[in-house]
Amino acid sequence: MTHHNHLVIMAGGIGTRFWPLSVEERPKQFLDITGCGRTMLQLTLDRFEGIVPMQNVWVVTLAQYADLVREQLPELPEQNLLLEPCGRNTAPCICYVSWKIKKRDPRANIVVTPSDHKVERPEAFREAIEDALEFAAETDAMVTLGMKATRPETGYGYIKADLSFASSRRKTIYRVDGFKEKPTLERAQEYYAQNSYFWNSGLFVWNVSTIVNAFRVYQPEMSRLFERLLSVYDTPEERTCIEDVYPQCEKISVDYAIMEKAEEIFVRPSDFGWSDLGTWNSLREQLPRDERGNACVGEVALFDTHNCIVHASGERKVVVQGLDGYVVCEKDGVLLICKLSEEQRIKLFH
Amino acid sequence: MTHHNHLVIMAGGIGTRFWPLSVEERPKQFLDITGCGRTMLQLTLDRFEGIVPMQNVWVVTLAQYADLVREQLPELPEQNLLLEPCGRNTAPCICYVSWKIKKRDPRANIVVTPSDHKVERPEAFREAIEDALEFAAETDAMVTLGMKATRPETGYGYIKADLSFASSRRKTIYRVDGFKEKPTLERAQEYYAQNSYFWNSGLFVWNVSTIVNAFRVYQPEMSRLFERLLSVYDTPEERTCIEDVYPQCEKISVDYAIMEKAEEIFVRPSDFGWSDLGTWNSLREQLPRDERGNACVGEVALFDTHNCIVHASGERKVVVQGLDGYVVCEKDGVLLICKLSEEQRIKLFH
Repeated sequence: MTHHNHLVIMAGGIGTRFWPLSVEERPKQFLDITGCGRTMLQLTLDRFEGIVPMQNVWVVTLAQYADLVREQLPELPEQNLLLEPCGRNTAPCICYVSWKIKKRDPRANIVVTPSDHKVERPEAFREAIEDALEFAAETDAMVTLGMKATRPETGYGYIKADLSFASSRRKTIYRVDGFKEKPTLERAQEYYAQNSYFWNSGLFVWNVSTIVNAFRVYQPEMSRLFERLLSVYDTPEERTCIEDVYPQCEKISVDYAIMEKAEEIFVRPSDFGWSDLGTWNSLREQLPRDERGNACVGEVALFDTHNCIVHASGERKVVVQGLDGYVVCEKDGVLLICKLSEEQRIKLFH
Repeated sequence: MTHHNHLVIMAGGIGTRFWPLSVEERPKQFLDITGCGRTMLQLTLDRFEGIVPMQNVWVVTLAQYADLVREQLPELPEQNLLLEPCGRNTAPCICYVSWKIKKRDPRANIVVTPSDHKVERPEAFREAIEDALEFAAETDAMVTLGMKATRPETGYGYIKADLSFASSRRKTIYRVDGFKEKPTLERAQEYYAQNSYFWNSGLFVWNVSTIVNAFRVYQPEMSRLFERLLSVYDTPEERTCIEDVYPQCEKISVDYAIMEKAEEIFVRPSDFGWSDLGTWNSLREQLPRDERGNACVGEVALFDTHNCIVHASGERKVVVQGLDGYVVCEKDGVLLICKLSEEQRIKLFH
C-alpha cells in the first residue's frame, strides 16, 4: 500500500432490475443482496483494505443517497463524499472526482470501481489491482480489468486484447485492441472460443494526471467545467457550484467518452470470480445453491422446486412448491413472481 | 317463517386447507374468503334471513372462537352461543344443541348447516330450505339437501336417492338409498352419468323430536350425557358440566353416527350453486375470473398467467408473471406458492 493509492467508488446507480428488492430509494449497492450481512457498497470497500488508506477513499453518489453512504460507510471522510445533483452516467462522475483528487494529491494512482459487483476470490482481486496500480503509477496507461470469460455471456461488453503485445514493464498487462458491445449469442460464442476476449468489468486503474489529461483531450468541455472549480473544491461553495455545473454535463459513460477514443489503453486479464450481479439469474448463480439449483435468502421452504432464486425479507416465511426457473422476491409490501427467462421485463412491472 | 324454525350453525371447524389464509386461530368460516366484505359465517346467517328469527339462531363453536363469533354476529343472543371445550366432530355438537333446543322449544324445526360453504343462488336455497322445513315439521323424516352434481367431483360424498319413491307429501323429496364416500374418478363419473346421485352438502333438516329420538336410538350413550344436563342448560352450571361431559363423547360425524343408521332419511334435491369451498381450486372456480381463468383477491397484477388463484392481503401488491395453475397466497408473514394440482399437500407445508 502506498499513500498515493486512491479508490473511487461509483455509487450513484438507481438500477431497479432487482425490483422489488432494489427500489429507487435504496438501489442494489445499498442492499445486502447476498444475505451475507454486508451491503454491496460495504463489500466493495472491504476488498480494498490494505490497498488504499481510508483518507484516500472517495465515493461519488446521487445527493439523495448521501445518508445511505454515511450510514453504511461511517469511516468515510465526509469531504470524500461527492454528491451528484443529478445522474449523468460515469464520465462526469469520474471527471469531477479526478479533478478533486488532483487538487488533493497530484501523484495519486486511482482505482475506479462500481459499487454493486461481486468478487469471489478477494486475494486474486487484490493481486490484479496492485499489479495495475503499480503499472499505472509508472506509465501513462489507462488500465481496464478484463475478466476471463467463463461462458458465452451476452449480458456483458467485451475487451479484445492484443495478446502479442504485452507491456514491456508487465507481462500480465496487454494492449487493448478494441471494446465490443454486448454481443449476440453467436458472437459471444465466437469470443468465448478465443482467449483474447475478456469481459469488461468497469474497473479502471490510472494515475490522476493520465485521466485528467484524457478528459482534457477527449472531453475538453466537460473537463473545463470541473477544472474551473479547482479553487472552490473543499470550500463551502463547492456544493452550489457543482449543482450549477453538473446538469450541463453530457450524459455519457467513461467507456464512450474516453476509453474508446484514447490510445494508451491496456487490459489486465484477471480471474477473481467476478459478476456484475446484473440479473436475478446471475445472483442465483453467485449465491450458494442447493442440489436442485435453488438459491435462497431468508426463511424459505422449497418442495419440488428447481433453479429458482427466492429472496425473502427477514419477517416473512416463504413456502414454494413446484416452480422451475423462477425468481420469487418479496419486500416492503411487494411480492414478485417471475420466470427468470423473462426477467428483463421486470422493469415494466412496477 | 314460523317462530318454530331454528337454525344451527356449526362453526367449530379448524380446517387449514386454505393456509396461510386460514390458520387455526382464524379458520375459514371467520374469513371473508371471497373478498365480498362478509365472512363465510356472516354469509351463512344472511341466507336465513326471513326464514329463522334471530332468537332461534344457534351457533356451536370451539370455545376459542367465542369472541370471533360474538364480533362477527353481534345480533346473536349470547345464550344461543354454544361453546365446545374440544372438537368432537359433528355428532356431539348436534346432540348438545338439539337437547338445548328441545328444552327451549319442543316443537322446533331445525336446519343444521356448516358455516363455511358457498351458495350462489340464495332464492333457490331459500326455497329448498323452506320446503324441507315444512316437510320436517309434518313428518319424522330426517332430510338432507342433495346438491345436483355439475361435474364428476371426487372431493364430495354422494347421496343416492330412490327417485321412484317420492314422499307422498312432497313430490320434491325422495327417500335415500344410501350414502357414498368420496368416490374415485371412475366411480364419480358413473354417479355423474346418473340422475339419482347428489352431492352431500352437510345441510340437514329435521324436527327436534326426530333428531333427539334418533340420538336416543342410535347413540344412546351420547344422548344420555346431554339429556342428563337438561336441568342445567341456561344456568351458570352449564359451562362446567359441558366441560366435563364433552370430552367423554366419541369423535364422530352425524353422518356416521345417525344418518347412515337411521331409516327415515330423505333427500331434497337442490340446485343453488353450492360449493364447500374446500380447496383453493374450488375457490378459484367460485370467484369471478378473468378471461384467462385467474381469480384474484387484493392488489394483483398478472402477466402471462393462467388458471391461478392469487390471494393478497390488503397491504401488499403482488406481481405474477408466467404461472399456470398455481395458488399464490400471502398473509400474516407467510407467502405460499403451490401448484393447484398439488394443493392437498399444503397441510404438510406449515
